[in-house]
Amino acid sequence: MMRGRVAYAGAIHEAYPEGDRVRLADGRICLEDDVVWLAPIDVGTLFALGLNYADHAKELQFTKQDEPLVFLKGPGTVLGHRGTTRRPADVTYMHYECELAVVIGRTAQNLKREEAMDHVAGYMIANDYAIRDYLENYYRPNLRVKNRDGGTVLGPWFVDAGDVRDVSNLELRTYVNGTLRQRGNTRDLVTDVPALIEYLSGFMTLAPGDVILTGTPEGTVNVDVGDEVVCEIDGLGRLVNTIASDADFGRY
Amino acid sequence: MMRGRVAYAGAIHEAYPEGDRVRLADGRICLEDDVVWLAPIDVGTLFALGLNYADHAKELQFTKQDEPLVFLKGPGTVLGHRGTTRRPADVTYMHYECELAVVIGRTAQNLKREEAMDHVAGYMIANDYAIRDYLENYYRPNLRVKNRDGGTVLGPWFVDAGDVRDVSNLELRTYVNGTLRQRGNTRDLVTDVPALIEYLSGFMTLAPGDVILTGTPEGTVNVDVGDEVVCEIDGLGRLVNTIASDADFGRY
Repeated sequence: MMRGRVAYAGAIHEAYPEGDRVRLADGRICLEDDVVWLAPIDVGTLFALGLNYADHAKELQFTKQDEPLVFLKGPGTVLGHRGTTRRPADVTYMHYECELAVVIGRTAQNLKREEAMDHVAGYMIANDYAIRDYLENYYRPNLRVKNRDGGTVLGPWFVDAGDVRDVSNLELRTYVNGTLRQRGNTRDLVTDVPALIEYLSGFMTLAPGDVILTGTPEGTVNVDVGDEVVCEIDGLGRLVNTIASDADFGRY
Repeated sequence: MMRGRVAYAGAIHEAYPEGDRVRLADGRICLEDDVVWLAPIDVGTLFALGLNYADHAKELQFTKQDEPLVFLKGPGTVLGHRGTTRRPADVTYMHYECELAVVIGRTAQNLKREEAMDHVAGYMIANDYAIRDYLENYYRPNLRVKNRDGGTVLGPWFVDAGDVRDVSNLELRTYVNGTLRQRGNTRDLVTDVPALIEYLSGFMTLAPGDVILTGTPEGTVNVDVGDEVVCEIDGLGRLVNTIASDADFGRY
């Protein structure tokens, strides 16, 4: 089952795919453009992986680390499908990052790899933007890099785990203005999904609604104001986002 | 006005100080021990400062940084007054950190220092525990250091900003088993409260309910299972926390 969340006619609705349109929980059918898409779930703790595809780590000239590189993103970064993300005028590099987002469904503590997948509720597509200008700071990543408003685009759908045949073999693709710019496969994850859950649940409790953004493969490039960025993952849909300018956001 | 949040007799209540007891919003008066204290507010984005008192930075042998060192903590770390925080058996250093917690009350974007304090709703005491064993990782702080369950103790009260005369002159004190172990004053903050709000709001939106833990002064020492840790800040009250073992938490 795929389900999203949209705002329409004064309320928030659960929504389902209906061909190229969406069906609301109350039966109404709308055009994709007629609704405001929200993140498909209420996100608890939002984890993100760095350098979790070897090709992307190489692209950034990083060497392999001994343990998964995990950091947190704040709730203010979350944005839904067809949202608009601001590109600050004073930065040089703003990179999209297409990523598989794993949603925890059951409380997880000290899990072994073999038990981990029983605690996954499902998956989403994430576009985990990075402003590459500000890498250096003792605490990394600097919040300027990974905690901008609208820097975590999620959706359009939450897809039940049971509907994803093999999470370790999903192709990821990013298109900028219709041109394919990034392509990878979750089979190349340095630390795969069950190992990530084993790692994190080994020192903290994972709760339902927690989300793990599993990292991005090679092929991140700068985006500019007006660009349309589309992230696709096999079986999860197609997540659309548009880049706007400071002027579009007024004071900021 | 000081207000807390407690669970009592099947429901969650707003609570107020009543001598050495607490008064619930419905008028009932309880002993401090008869209620379960929760964090005084629903926390949005939870920011924490590293090395924001020069004496503590020196104690950890760090040199001054060019910009505030801010990282995020997850919602799963939050615990209320009189809660119990687990000390993992496999770690060597678990440090309390008494800190002034600043609660944002109005949306803040691109504020100047002079406007910043108008966006503060109030203050709380925080005990921002650190497991000092795992400092090294490309992303810092490693989540093992700062994202453990119960590692952000908040309360007992939320205190309105208008009731705090001078936020830049509050003494902080931590007692372990009744002995004073840490003492500092917010006048020694490297980056003070308005400057922190100016900094953060300069690249992201601060929202009502966001909380900034402003860092801890010199005097952090290891705590052991069974220790009672009390953090005090002038005018904000007295935040009590107890250290428990893995065994007390079962599987973990």
